[in-house]
Amino acid sequence: VNDNRIEFRDYMAVGLVKHTARDTDVIVAALVSTMGEESAIAERSNQQNKGLINYLMRDRHGSPFEHNSMTFLVNAPIFVARQFMRHRTGWSYNEESGRYRELQPVFYMPSRSRNLVQTGKTGAYVFEPGSPDQYGVLASSFESTCTKAWRCYQRCSNRASPAKWPAWSSRSPRTPRSTPPATPAH
Amino acid sequence: VNDNRIEFRDYMAVGLVKHTARDTDVIVAALVSTMGEESAIAERSNQQNKGLINYLMRDRHGSPFEHNSMTFLVNAPIFVARQFMRHRTGWSYNEESGRYRELQPVFYMPSRSRNLVQTGKTGAYVFEPGSPDQYGVLASSFESTCTKAWRCYQRCSNRASPAKWPAWSSRSPRTPRSTPPATPAH
Amino acid sequence: VNDNRIEFRDYMAVGLVKHTARDTDVIVAALVSTMGEESAIAERSNQQNKGLINYLMRDRHGSPFEHNSMTFLVNAPIFVARQFMRHRTGWSYNEESGRYRELQPVFYMPSRSRNLVQTGKTGAYVFEPGSPDQYGVLASSFESTCTKAWRCYQRCSNRASPAKWPAWSSRSPRTPRSTPPATPAH
Amino acid sequence: VNDNRIEFRDYMAVGLVKHTARDTDVIVAALVSTMGEESAIAERSNQQNKGLINYLMRDRHGSPFEHNSMTFLVNAPIFVARQFMRHRTGWSYNEESGRYRELQPVFYMPSRSRNLVQTGKTGAYVFEPGSPDQYGVLASSFESTCTKAWRCYQRCSNRASPAKWPAWSSRSPRTPRSTPPATPAH
Repeated sequence: VNDNRIEFRDYMAVGLVKHTARDTDVIVAALVSTMGEESAIAERSNQQNKGLINYLMRDRHGSPFEHNSMTFLVNAPIFVARQFMRHRTGWSYNEESGRYRELQPVFYMPSRSRNLVQTGKTGAYVFEPGSPDQYGVLASSFESTCTKAWRCYQRCSNRASPAKWPAWSSRSPRTPRSTPPATPAH
Repeated sequence: VNDNRIEFRDYMAVGLVKHTARDTDVIVAALVSTMGEESAIAERSNQQNKGLINYLMRDRHGSPFEHNSMTFLVNAPIFVARQFMRHRTGWSYNEESGRYRELQPVFYMPSRSRNLVQTGKTGAYVFEPGSPDQYGVLASSFESTCTKAWRCYQRCSNRASPAKWPAWSSRSPRTPRSTPPATPAH
Repeated sequence: VNDNRIEFRDYMAVGLVKHTARDTDVIVAALVSTMGEESAIAERSNQQNKGLINYLMRDRHGSPFEHNSMTFLVNAPIFVARQFMRHRTGWSYNEESGRYRELQPVFYMPSRSRNLVQTGKTGAYVFEPGSPDQYGVLASSFESTCTKAWRCYQRCSNRASPAKWPAWSSRSPRTPRSTPPATPAH
Repeated sequence: VNDNRIEFRDYMAVGLVKHTARDTDVIVAALVSTMGEESAIAERSNQQNKGLINYLMRDRHGSPFEHNSMTFLVNAPIFVARQFMRHRTGWSYNEESGRYRELQPVFYMPSRSRNLVQTGKTGAYVFEPGSPDQYGVLASSFESTCTKAWRCYQRCSNRASPAKWPAWSSRSPRTPRSTPPATPAH
């Protein structure tokens, strides 16, 4: 089994793909309330626009901001993506699919600076650093478990060349790899 | 009372204010499913992109289209705007406000080509043309009623210079008119 | 024209049609977080439930409240209903329809206690009482305008027996009135 | 490590917790369109109600159905729950939390009757049965991987009594187990 590709990350990556969110977009939307179709965006100074945006935000007039949109490419662990998706209203998603592509062996590993201990009672928790020993157990456990999971995924996806199975993790014919995985081993 | 400004329209106006909705935006979103972060948009031909978009639409894979947005300026009667707003999910609105601005005397008048008669039973209606006589009654009734409503609005908004009232239809200090309304008459 | 039915109201009516919103519904939802499928609702005291609901609300844990729903019958002027509908997310609507039924001549009339004068600049308004004279002009203008609008609606809906037109205001065959309107007059 | 509790399931469980979704709820909502506040639900026969519901559904008048709600308790693998959550609009969620409770060692295992092989090209897949050998590799790989993951979770959650760590998998003080886990072993 080829484990060389396994990567552990303690970070997430967020990139801005596109947006339609200029300051003047907010101004144009806000002026509909006061000027209807006679929008006078061209006659306004940057100073006036800045003042109006600050006023809208301060007094929580949120609707002129709603016409803007931003699209991000997010690379995050599934347990983070799940929390993101819970707040679906207003968001749209496309996601890398294990049906169309062999998923990559990238796993989350907490950094050493992350608090490991949760103390206190329900609703009043405090998070505190773990000991070096605790982090060591965590890191070695994560590493061996993720490595085993990756081998399981490869074994089930590539039982024997050229057959590919099973349905939930098939490699896509569109994304051939130059280095096929070796014979699976338990 | 100044009735010269009253306008009757049998149409609505829709203008595209801005958009982020290029074909390649759909492609970029779709490729996330199959290629993750390794999007190969640059290597694709227009022909390939056209084929993929047609496939997505035909098989109702709607999510890659959701990342696009369009902003319109719509000029429509309130009874049309109300139906529009019922379908709020996914839409954001800003609307001309009678609190900030004197509303304009623009009213809807059905065109002569619009069917006037609804026949049949509930759930199985047919709409048919009205007679010239029916249209005549409709047009004169609409005109006199809208004119009266406009005068009522002006009378209540501008009882006496410089006082402005009432709360729900005050003229905005931001949009002075050069020709103030004459003394209100019943 | 039969104007006897015209009614002016300075109030709105809201009735609770049904609900699924008991305190224990919130508790059951909240316990999923802490107890999964082993919900122990039966073992909890009212005092414990009260404490948990207060904690959830105070710390803004809103999701356990979301499983509840309430259905209201609301009788309100169109300009109020429009603001209600703007906030569509999470709401569903059915509305009396002019296609299926003759609408009733019920109009809004501000009460004498309602402030009529809006003073101050945009974003910093104060609403103040109007004078008796101002209210008088308002009331008489509203009354005559609404009466005219009602006559227009009747005239266009019932041009001649038995024909009914136009499409946007036809009386429904399902809701015959025992006292048909008299011959329309301008 | 106590592995006795590990359970593999090839099914999901869905239970109805509560609902407000009687046929008459749909009728009451639909009658608002045609009768406004004069709802005549009491005068209608079951036969009439059945006919109206069938008509509404057949002609896709969906809004009278929207006032109903149902609450389910769902027990499903994370990869299923994730697809469920993608369609957030109109749904509310509470979920068992690893912060408040020790999660249970229940894992998904495909049944023998589940198709394992995906053949065909992107967008035109067919799913076919796997061989007994393929199922055997799958089952043994899943079992050993899930067992290792469970041990990792226990080891990190219960490093040493009475300390509890780390933050993302702490056992809740509210749900003490009578049989504490044995000393963790790698």
